[in-house]
Amino acid sequence: MVLLPTLREVEGGVVILDQTRLPEAIETLELRTLDQVAEAIRSMQVRGAPLIGVTAAFGVAIALASHADDASLAQAISRLAATRPTAVNLQWALSRMQHLLAPLPLHARADAAWREARTMADEDEAANAAIGRHGLELIGALSQGKPIINVMTHCNAGRLATMAHGTALAPVYAAHHAGMPVHVWVSETRPRNQGLLTAWELADAGVPHTLIADNAAGLLLMQGRVDMVIVGADRIAANGDTANKVGTYLKALAARQQGVPFYVAAPRSTIDLACAAGTDIPIEERDPAELGAGHTPAHNPAFDITPAGLITGIITESGIVPPGQLKS
Amino acid sequence: MVLLPTLREVEGGVVILDQTRLPEAIETLELRTLDQVAEAIRSMQVRGAPLIGVTAAFGVAIALASHADDASLAQAISRLAATRPTAVNLQWALSRMQHLLAPLPLHARADAAWREARTMADEDEAANAAIGRHGLELIGALSQGKPIINVMTHCNAGRLATMAHGTALAPVYAAHHAGMPVHVWVSETRPRNQGLLTAWELADAGVPHTLIADNAAGLLLMQGRVDMVIVGADRIAANGDTANKVGTYLKALAARQQGVPFYVAAPRSTIDLACAAGTDIPIEERDPAELGAGHTPAHNPAFDITPAGLITGIITESGIVPPGQLKS
Repeated sequence: MVLLPTLREVEGGVVILDQTRLPEAIETLELRTLDQVAEAIRSMQVRGAPLIGVTAAFGVAIALASHADDASLAQAISRLAATRPTAVNLQWALSRMQHLLAPLPLHARADAAWREARTMADEDEAANAAIGRHGLELIGALSQGKPIINVMTHCNAGRLATMAHGTALAPVYAAHHAGMPVHVWVSETRPRNQGLLTAWELADAGVPHTLIADNAAGLLLMQGRVDMVIVGADRIAANGDTANKVGTYLKALAARQQGVPFYVAAPRSTIDLACAAGTDIPIEERDPAELGAGHTPAHNPAFDITPAGLITGIITESGIVPPGQLKS
Repeated sequence: MVLLPTLREVEGGVVILDQTRLPEAIETLELRTLDQVAEAIRSMQVRGAPLIGVTAAFGVAIALASHADDASLAQAISRLAATRPTAVNLQWALSRMQHLLAPLPLHARADAAWREARTMADEDEAANAAIGRHGLELIGALSQGKPIINVMTHCNAGRLATMAHGTALAPVYAAHHAGMPVHVWVSETRPRNQGLLTAWELADAGVPHTLIADNAAGLLLMQGRVDMVIVGADRIAANGDTANKVGTYLKALAARQQGVPFYVAAPRSTIDLACAAGTDIPIEERDPAELGAGHTPAHNPAFDITPAGLITGIITESGIVPPGQLKS
């Protein structure tokens, strides 16, 4: 067990696990300036919707430590908000910091910002633990009479994407700790290969898993080798349409076709009630160079939208809700 | 235009374009023994269902050039048949050689084998040209009133997979040569990245194209950025279920969901009437090391099955047929 924290506070900054170096190398990075935090989020040295939110909150605290005036606050928020467009947790965290800090006198802002960032980090850990407990009941129910329960996931929505436990993987870890024979199909997740992060953290926790090409997900579902799919989310619209790592939609289609339950696991901060439907969610387009194909023209959208109708349920810290009942 | 032939005959053997070196390097390989031919097919130095069939036919001719007795013929056929299980063109070509050669006197076999292999090479080129003509009508009909027609494909079913023209790409080349503004979405095709072969040959022919991660296919279809999907096939069962490169099924599901026509292009030699349905088609499992994830446990099926119900039509050299009417 390595279990280095994904983010920890140090005097005047934070130390993150550099996720662009994993799994080849376990390296940490100190972030002590607003620019460093913004660049770490943009370049995906720190990634995962919940962890991005917490990191951005610390980024505001770091920025205010040197200048706590209104212009600095506004600049910090706009700089951080511009790093990644799809994950609403980022906007949610920045909005929460703005509402807390703007009414405060300048001298009180920096300390309040650090405290709030810490609170958000603790809340993330607690929310994910609760997601794990709710998801455990689903896995327990599906595992009745089965020698093994096969969970398929996509990208990395594990502890590396959060402060602890993960979102999609929280139920898996809970099941593993409860002694259930759980096995995870891990899709590679091109072009950034976050599936390798998932394989790395599952190996670290001793959870059986098998890596597959993203292309193989449909065949495994057709062959009856998947009992449930659980993925994370970057933004869930009010109608339940869900933005998650590109490729999620294809898995949802195959799961529906084969009658396999498809769950989204995310903290409530990922739900964006201001966004009516998936068509309102901005899709981040990243550098085509991530595909690594030299001069070949390329297009690299980082997320896709899974329509609510393909989602069996959304697992949040408050329980499991059908995607059509988010407002209540 | 490079247009090196994928396979050409030389005295006592064949020269192939080494497709494991493309697109980084354009290198050829001489195959002068049965073992060399078998290894070239197994390792995918030569690949693509139609081209594998022709190469295997030349492999029989090469084997018989040294020993033309019954044991050598049987050994050559069984050695070549064992290289790749899914593409039926391989079995079809070997069966055709067996039926032609077995009744002949030993002294006549080698020459007859060379002649038959040449005939099969010529037939492949002619069949693909006909597929291009039939597919061109589809593209022409879909392109009415559109400034550009966007075709999505998967893997490489282009000229590199055949003696010439390709199967799935034959209609694209025909449309391009007819002056239609055709653009191709090329999916990477993990884990072997045959999409890079497709991009390479499209660039060579001057056809506009854009590389995407396999994961992005669903989003592009949802966004209305795909007018039709055309893929190749490795084996088409009697009921129209089609084995093709793993990931094809996911594209077919998304195309159906979005109302986009999904075509399979293949010569009639890819249709296996002895195979009733997709469940009867063997799925090749290749070395997990192809995923390049070191010691991570991995699973690497190379093909999947697209149910006939998701296929709009099958384009063969004889015309375009609904998948349910193959027998007639």
